[in-house]
Amino acid sequence: MCEANVYWLDEDGKTSLFLDAVDKVIPDDNGKIFFENIYGERKTVAARIKRMELVDHKIFLEPRKG
Amino acid sequence: MCEANVYWLDEDGKTSLFLDAVDKVIPDDNGKIFFENIYGERKTVAARIKRMELVDHKIFLEPRKG
Repeated sequence: MCEANVYWLDEDGKTSLFLDAVDKVIPDDNGKIFFENIYGERKTVAARIKRMELVDHKIFLEPRKG
Repeated sequence: MCEANVYWLDEDGKTSLFLDAVDKVIPDDNGKIFFENIYGERKTVAARIKRMELVDHKIFLEPRKG
């Protein structure tokens, strides 16, 4: 399975898990992103995607400023 | 391998391949997104991510408006 783990990435480069095993990622037009994982968990958050490393199953988020 | 194929998604729901086997996706602060695939091909484009379906290895883009 090719789901990804989604992490917060802070300004010091530290990461913390936001949601694991994510399948669907759907940004809206208002700066929020909807996530759904393979277990059916859903989260929506005001964030932007900082970087994705799909081969390593990683997506990094940062809080949306302003 | 868990790379994804990246497609343009037009307003009629039609898709066309933009870049296959993408590993890294890095949005910048100016509305552009950098992509690098597992073959080392790199593309940068003015776009926004419309939707990702990672289990199906698919990322859909739309052109960035304005």
